[in-house]
Amino acid sequence: MSAILIAVEGPQAGDWLAALRDSAKGREVLAWSAGADDLSRVSFACVWLPPRGLLARIPNLKAVINLGAGADHLLADPDLPDVPIARAAHADLTMRVTEYVVLHVLMHHRRQRLYDGQQRERSWRVHDQPAASEVAVGVMGLGVIGAHAAVALAGLGFKVAGWSRSPKTISGVETFHGPAGLDAFLARTEILVCLLPRTRDTEGILNLALLRKLKRDGAAGGAFLINAGRGALQVDAEILAALDEGTLAGTTLDVFQNEPLRVDSPLWSHPKVTITPHNAGDISPRVFAPHVIAQIERFERGLPLDNRIDRTKGY
Amino acid sequence: MSAILIAVEGPQAGDWLAALRDSAKGREVLAWSAGADDLSRVSFACVWLPPRGLLARIPNLKAVINLGAGADHLLADPDLPDVPIARAAHADLTMRVTEYVVLHVLMHHRRQRLYDGQQRERSWRVHDQPAASEVAVGVMGLGVIGAHAAVALAGLGFKVAGWSRSPKTISGVETFHGPAGLDAFLARTEILVCLLPRTRDTEGILNLALLRKLKRDGAAGGAFLINAGRGALQVDAEILAALDEGTLAGTTLDVFQNEPLRVDSPLWSHPKVTITPHNAGDISPRVFAPHVIAQIERFERGLPLDNRIDRTKGY
Repeated sequence: MSAILIAVEGPQAGDWLAALRDSAKGREVLAWSAGADDLSRVSFACVWLPPRGLLARIPNLKAVINLGAGADHLLADPDLPDVPIARAAHADLTMRVTEYVVLHVLMHHRRQRLYDGQQRERSWRVHDQPAASEVAVGVMGLGVIGAHAAVALAGLGFKVAGWSRSPKTISGVETFHGPAGLDAFLARTEILVCLLPRTRDTEGILNLALLRKLKRDGAAGGAFLINAGRGALQVDAEILAALDEGTLAGTTLDVFQNEPLRVDSPLWSHPKVTITPHNAGDISPRVFAPHVIAQIERFERGLPLDNRIDRTKGY
Repeated sequence: MSAILIAVEGPQAGDWLAALRDSAKGREVLAWSAGADDLSRVSFACVWLPPRGLLARIPNLKAVINLGAGADHLLADPDLPDVPIARAAHADLTMRVTEYVVLHVLMHHRRQRLYDGQQRERSWRVHDQPAASEVAVGVMGLGVIGAHAAVALAGLGFKVAGWSRSPKTISGVETFHGPAGLDAFLARTEILVCLLPRTRDTEGILNLALLRKLKRDGAAGGAFLINAGRGALQVDAEILAALDEGTLAGTTLDVFQNEPLRVDSPLWSHPKVTITPHNAGDISPRVFAPHVIAQIERFERGLPLDNRIDRTKGY
């Protein structure tokens, strides 16, 4: 049987290798390292942030499995071979990002940062609290994850709308699409959740001009932004400007233009900013690995890859 | 038409009076004050923490509407007249407490306090994160609110069980009941949510002995407690002891033995404690008032009160 190459950047590299070896049922699984061995036995590459040019060096490569949702790093490789690429997609990832989105929407909705500040001052004071049914949440990006998060938020009572590139229909969620639908979507949204992929069209989309179009006459005085999509979607300096002028009342950012976020970034200490280290969609190699191997086995039997990336769309 | 008396203690008193007057369709609505007028015209009393003995002074009282979920204060009045008492119950209250419960379960589940600490130190570090499907949440109290919160948590993927005085059946939720079912419920629970009413049986139930029975071999090392029920259910000093010995990894408390929480309480500054000022179930008089008036009108047409309090059970 043809071998699988694992090339994972980051602290989970060892976990991925162990989990994929456990699931591979005796098939050869190679871990890529700089002084790499003969890659001619490799038919499949399972990768996360692989070095540029690596995939081009695998002469018999048949398919690539990207071990995360965002494929922008992979597609930016100028020497990317012309083989099918699948995006990691599994209920586990969808559920984890939904947990993150629901947590941070509720945290802003329930003014938890205001109560955290009161706790530090030993102050017991109740503030007016709108019901979820009075608050409009908007989700940008309605792929599998965005659609699931939107439905979960609607189940908690929020007025939920979604915006996506192409038209979508989701029960209980008002949908908008394309550049023509964006302003109307923003004008009704008080808590904006961004789950867009990074493409030429979405880079820098979370800028001051866009944020100023959000609805901001709610109880909090400003809107809220949660970005769990990609760092390149946001302009860090313009998010700070939106916070400081009151356009935004608060934000949760899981992703940044440069990661790890530089220690001298003013985002770290801004009182209205919550920072997480790009872990919204952290997936469990143990849960994922059997699905990756099953993908490869289906492909070898002649079936198409699930969740195949469309290079022209960029996701 | 017979008059309604409003006796509300706290900052929402004015909002309740205005909202009930707006909904009363011309019926006389009296605000109680210490130098009270003739109470003989009053047939219905809408109350929250009314002065003891007040209701006994209303000669023609037909029914009482308690403008909150907990009736323990009301039932502790030794001169409480023998008229039907209804508890405020409405989807708005259920949804608001569910928002609170979901927020704080997710906050502990996703280690948000750990990430808050890292943000203060400008530290970018990802920690192992179990999926909700690997985490057992237990809800004590399966009335309308507890059952709704349990179902919402199950929808996010958690393994949810509930415990109540009498047997209940809730789709997707494992149920336990009575003293005989308590230990098994606790032994499988890593995140404990308490929504019990205050009764003779539940006072002080959240003590060190009970907390030590929780499951604590999960990723966080200790269990988590969220009390949005009643302050009298918990023993503040024993919750601190449970945190300091590692039985609890964290807690969110909305209620306390004495409210407002005393400024010298060590809970305020404990790094594993999140405090909110008894606002989990803060309801909107504007939304509630029409339902209160409709209750009264149904009662006058000879129908029983909804959500009537059972004095022998105490809730």
